[in-house]
Amino acid sequence: MGDGETAEGSVWEAAAFSSHYKLDNLVAIVDVNRLGQSEATALGHSVDVYKARYDAFGWNAIIVDGHDIMAVCKALLTAATTKDKPTALIAKTLKGKYFPGVEDLDNWHGKPLGKQSGPALEAVKALITDNGPHGLSPRPIKDDAPKITFPKVQLCEPPKHTMGEKIATRKTYGEALVKLGKNYSRIVALDGDTKNSTFAITYKNCCPERFVECFIAEQNMVGVGIGLGCRARNIVFVSAFAAFFTRAFDQIRMGAISQTEVNFVGSHAGCSIGEDGPSQMALEDFAMFRTIPGAVCFYPSDAVSAERAFELAANHRGVTFTRTSRPATAVVYENTETFEIGKSKVLRKSDGDKVTVVGAGVTLHEALAAHKTLQAEGINIRVVDAFCLKPVDKALMVECGKATGGRIVTVEDHYFEGGLGEGVAAAVAEDGGVKVHRLAVTGIPRSGPAALLMEDYGISANCIVKAVKKMLA
Amino acid sequence: MGDGETAEGSVWEAAAFSSHYKLDNLVAIVDVNRLGQSEATALGHSVDVYKARYDAFGWNAIIVDGHDIMAVCKALLTAATTKDKPTALIAKTLKGKYFPGVEDLDNWHGKPLGKQSGPALEAVKALITDNGPHGLSPRPIKDDAPKITFPKVQLCEPPKHTMGEKIATRKTYGEALVKLGKNYSRIVALDGDTKNSTFAITYKNCCPERFVECFIAEQNMVGVGIGLGCRARNIVFVSAFAAFFTRAFDQIRMGAISQTEVNFVGSHAGCSIGEDGPSQMALEDFAMFRTIPGAVCFYPSDAVSAERAFELAANHRGVTFTRTSRPATAVVYENTETFEIGKSKVLRKSDGDKVTVVGAGVTLHEALAAHKTLQAEGINIRVVDAFCLKPVDKALMVECGKATGGRIVTVEDHYFEGGLGEGVAAAVAEDGGVKVHRLAVTGIPRSGPAALLMEDYGISANCIVKAVKKMLA
Repeated sequence: MGDGETAEGSVWEAAAFSSHYKLDNLVAIVDVNRLGQSEATALGHSVDVYKARYDAFGWNAIIVDGHDIMAVCKALLTAATTKDKPTALIAKTLKGKYFPGVEDLDNWHGKPLGKQSGPALEAVKALITDNGPHGLSPRPIKDDAPKITFPKVQLCEPPKHTMGEKIATRKTYGEALVKLGKNYSRIVALDGDTKNSTFAITYKNCCPERFVECFIAEQNMVGVGIGLGCRARNIVFVSAFAAFFTRAFDQIRMGAISQTEVNFVGSHAGCSIGEDGPSQMALEDFAMFRTIPGAVCFYPSDAVSAERAFELAANHRGVTFTRTSRPATAVVYENTETFEIGKSKVLRKSDGDKVTVVGAGVTLHEALAAHKTLQAEGINIRVVDAFCLKPVDKALMVECGKATGGRIVTVEDHYFEGGLGEGVAAAVAEDGGVKVHRLAVTGIPRSGPAALLMEDYGISANCIVKAVKKMLA
Repeated sequence: MGDGETAEGSVWEAAAFSSHYKLDNLVAIVDVNRLGQSEATALGHSVDVYKARYDAFGWNAIIVDGHDIMAVCKALLTAATTKDKPTALIAKTLKGKYFPGVEDLDNWHGKPLGKQSGPALEAVKALITDNGPHGLSPRPIKDDAPKITFPKVQLCEPPKHTMGEKIATRKTYGEALVKLGKNYSRIVALDGDTKNSTFAITYKNCCPERFVECFIAEQNMVGVGIGLGCRARNIVFVSAFAAFFTRAFDQIRMGAISQTEVNFVGSHAGCSIGEDGPSQMALEDFAMFRTIPGAVCFYPSDAVSAERAFELAANHRGVTFTRTSRPATAVVYENTETFEIGKSKVLRKSDGDKVTVVGAGVTLHEALAAHKTLQAEGINIRVVDAFCLKPVDKALMVECGKATGGRIVTVEDHYFEGGLGEGVAAAVAEDGGVKVHRLAVTGIPRSGPAALLMEDYGISANCIVKAVKKMLA
């Protein structure tokens, strides 16, 4: 890694994690060339300070002259024989070493050498006095890791819930993982000291050897997850409060560029978490995960759809995000119901539906309550459970919108931007002819009882009833 | 801070920053109670390890018994007299100390004491043997900091550009800051070792005492910016490559909850940065910043509108985000043009316009090129410069959409989710009757020449021409 880069906190999250788990097969080489992009780094060539920091973080830190190949080899040999702790080579170097007019000078970051390239090449060639036993070519890579092909992973038994039974989908997360893990040994779960809230603890209790506690360090947790999922080694589930994944947006974004295969599971989302307050309320998680290229985003509304969402996630090669709910929600699906990526579900339908209301997660239940209220007043609405927020089920949204007078109301426990509402509105706007009114969380919620917050911030059954009537007025 | 929390990398970014700048008026108290939320922390009660880490990060670390008030006071006195380095009190404590049935036990995180509350209260009361010189009430806070009211901050001279002149808006950023800073002394700029790319360096060169280099630690940089902007002390501008703000999404999100006033400026956005490759391309920055409650998002297309965007940002009390462009773009506005938050601009208009094309930043220039091509073929399009992506200029979008046969094409150097296209589509879908076809970056771009990438990933003038024709077909 670069020396300037060690200013990033994620480096120290990884350092603490690696020493805690005694990862003695891990070696970090810090290229201390003292130059950042725009000026010298904060620590310059103070290799002793780098060593002290790595030592304090539980590593075996060795200062070496980064230009002395034998010294580097010797340090790597020490690393290979060091037990119970990772090793850091603090390599003192000069940027552009040996290049005339470049060595140790500022303002060469990320630039072609230009006129300096000829003399630089000459300088490098002059240094090659011994081609070594293999010439200048590296030995061919011997890839002896067995090739793994994931089977179709299934729940070891289908959902067994009772219609109307109230279960929090976060609780279902732990149970679904156990059902998947019993059928397939390569399912690994990670959590960042929230396992008793996300219910990853259920999996830990069942399969402790396939659970990794990552403590309160989400950037590193995501990095560990990405690593575990590399080269089809494991099916990885990473859980946290959904809001805490915002800490790791860059890691997730970069992961997608590297064709990452990780399933993220975020609990405690939205104002419906109630008393925990806004710092813990994810209200921008879908906006974030929807931007990840190829990501699939689920938001199950009950225990049956949640079990199936996790099963779909386990079988998806790429990034998935599933949002779970803190409050217990009623089971609305038969145990035999089947689910697909990119497909929503119609839960209430009649020939005389005036408006389509699209909910997801907790707001689906508000939509169902609004349906009941409106029906008693002689107004029929169609109720759609979005289930999958990316890809959006455009065909169904357009079909329902057109069948209900060109009117859709979306309702989400999320800010207005980048979530269910904008996704649905943009999808149907491709065809035109359907109005979409969006209900979402209006402003930063306070702490309070969930039902009160959903009412005050505009996403309750009552708010849906009003929106439907306004649209029909 | 909590002990479990010190696993977060942002803590060590702040630690490194604070010692580098010798912040001897800063004291951290680490409450080492050994218990996390779901299990013991990685370091438990190893206060010596905490001390070693803070020492290595350049702090004066003092281990104290956190329950010994005199020891804590003594350590704080030491902190007050320590020069050139911040002080950390490593306070060894027991969670729920003195509470019967609670002290030092697991599973009490974030829970009401319930039945244990009576005995706990008794235990606390029994401990109060001396009410101290001020009774049990703290001394009233003496707020002697002068109250600041920001004036209307204006550029010291208006834009002086020539129509058609090519200037990168990132370059304009530095120049506009200088123009604002010359007029008002409380403008502070921060950057994270990208100042020679974002052009924050222009401001540093002019007003070095009002520039803070934050090195490669974006989470901490955002925190420092939030702090500098507190209580109307400064007008703060924080710049980085736009993609790097994803590192600090949680800090920005939490900042909004705390009524933060900071202006973020992100350069090097989109596939139009070309050769730097996808890791540096912000393609999700608007999706992120648009979720921030109350945030205003600008995307100026030329030097004139960019100067005015920064002037508007300086006068906005809250969070703003302005995206600047890497490529030089032609000046399209007269120097006298005025701009407003939430208002877009019509740049090409005729009575016979068939489609409205909405661009912003680099894509506005693609839209203008498409206008020329289509006009030569007898097809007139209306061209709108979005300028402000949040709030969306809904009235103008609806007006233009309806005036051009109910057809809008949006084009953005951003992924499909959460940016210009979804914002415009959702805004016009409220009224219905306007189709919106969105052009955005289709997949993860490779490294390459900017023009080639814009063509390959679907946002070039040529792509706009095709989309317009398809919509009319």
